[in-house]
Amino acid sequence: MPGHGGSAAEVSGTFTWPVRVYYEDTDFGGVVYHANYLKFLERGRSEWLRHLGFEQDKLREQLGIQFVVVGMQLEFHQPALFNHELEVSVLVTGMRPASMIFDQSITDLTAGRALVCSAQVRAACVDSVTHKPKPLPREIVAELA
Amino acid sequence: MPGHGGSAAEVSGTFTWPVRVYYEDTDFGGVVYHANYLKFLERGRSEWLRHLGFEQDKLREQLGIQFVVVGMQLEFHQPALFNHELEVSVLVTGMRPASMIFDQSITDLTAGRALVCSAQVRAACVDSVTHKPKPLPREIVAELA
Amino acid sequence: MPGHGGSAAEVSGTFTWPVRVYYEDTDFGGVVYHANYLKFLERGRSEWLRHLGFEQDKLREQLGIQFVVVGMQLEFHQPALFNHELEVSVLVTGMRPASMIFDQSITDLTAGRALVCSAQVRAACVDSVTHKPKPLPREIVAELA
Amino acid sequence: MPGHGGSAAEVSGTFTWPVRVYYEDTDFGGVVYHANYLKFLERGRSEWLRHLGFEQDKLREQLGIQFVVVGMQLEFHQPALFNHELEVSVLVTGMRPASMIFDQSITDLTAGRALVCSAQVRAACVDSVTHKPKPLPREIVAELA
Repeated sequence: MPGHGGSAAEVSGTFTWPVRVYYEDTDFGGVVYHANYLKFLERGRSEWLRHLGFEQDKLREQLGIQFVVVGMQLEFHQPALFNHELEVSVLVTGMRPASMIFDQSITDLTAGRALVCSAQVRAACVDSVTHKPKPLPREIVAELA
Repeated sequence: MPGHGGSAAEVSGTFTWPVRVYYEDTDFGGVVYHANYLKFLERGRSEWLRHLGFEQDKLREQLGIQFVVVGMQLEFHQPALFNHELEVSVLVTGMRPASMIFDQSITDLTAGRALVCSAQVRAACVDSVTHKPKPLPREIVAELA
Repeated sequence: MPGHGGSAAEVSGTFTWPVRVYYEDTDFGGVVYHANYLKFLERGRSEWLRHLGFEQDKLREQLGIQFVVVGMQLEFHQPALFNHELEVSVLVTGMRPASMIFDQSITDLTAGRALVCSAQVRAACVDSVTHKPKPLPREIVAELA
Repeated sequence: MPGHGGSAAEVSGTFTWPVRVYYEDTDFGGVVYHANYLKFLERGRSEWLRHLGFEQDKLREQLGIQFVVVGMQLEFHQPALFNHELEVSVLVTGMRPASMIFDQSITDLTAGRALVCSAQVRAACVDSVTHKPKPLPREIVAELA
């Protein structure tokens, strides 16, 4: 992986994305503040979508949809430290007409790939104005089939 | 409750704390960004501890401990809107030697007490330097008994 | 001042608003992360507007306007600590057709009213869709005259 | 620039770093929340330091120092939009025994390199425990001479 926070790898269906821990991410306990892991998880899902060819601003403008998290199950195994390089993984494990289920993890590459956080995330496809559920776009369903 | 920073109510074991939604909390979907609900939940737990007489900076300085979230189960029912007044609830539902389990909710008072988020949170008591588990302070156990 | 969310005091034109430092606000240096002071400053301006009778969601819905920060001059004098109670001040020092200038400060009440941050903030009134400048609403101008 | 948010370029003394706008960075105005630009500016300075060979966790552990922002002058020219790719620039314009001055900018690459934010930032070198000023490490001074 080329140093600075870019590049993506796809291994047997799992997409990964690097994240660097900056000051903004930590709290006075000296480690990443727990709510900020959710940001990292979402960066992973956003980049996974982009990797498949879907830009979320376009999905919103052209199809009037966005994805919202409706449920999460989170385990925080070991804190991630300032300045460390992390890796977020994204794996789709379920699809329904208007939602998707993801298995995600965050590992600390600087700490020998220690598992930091594992998450199951349910994201619904909703109308970006009314926030009512809408079917997943056919293009995304086709891409994942 | 000492002057500034909100009013608190305790009803049959449930502690509540008000939170106002500011610009900082929202995202371009027009509602509160999902990770920010975790901040609101923690403000609730922090104020609950203070309400019981425990200041977290003192717990850290005097006993060398802090609380860290080790697991969460989250349901996001309905988005909370900009400028709305929310209420965070805190109820202890379990205690082990070195951890506590909380049932928490966030309701939107401005939207007729609509349920926004419900959460089960496991928080461990850890050494603030080593991050290793430590028994809950006797004072807290006594207070909750 | 309506119940929840803090008490407010107005002394000779200066409005103040209390802010508590939570985990979410700190970084691994053990103090408030510098960007988060900008959130506190904005909470102060939001509550000042509410205090004058203006709700920002209503301004947006009814007049199609919002305020955006277009310039800031910031001095960080002394860090604010976890769990401390801060006070944000708001004083209007200038008004133009489509913008306002504020003098603001953040003081640490828990640390003997130590000055934490002083700021000069320019906020423009803009169309909430196009982000183009719009004249300040007459009601606000009248209120401040 | 290779798509995904990595890679750095150094042109005539100016260091640049790419930043992608995610949901977490935006607010309900539909653009990046102003305080979050400060995070982007700091990512730029952190990566500039790393680029010179200095890791901030090591500076802290080995020399007991960290950098803190003590003053900023900010102009927000045009809002940056969700999903856009930004570029943060870093240029050292002044050095004193215990502080540095940076000229920084943020441009929106997706919006034709529009200037989003320009900033002058003063960062002091401080003892990471006492937060008192300390001279800049000789290695950094030598690197910049």
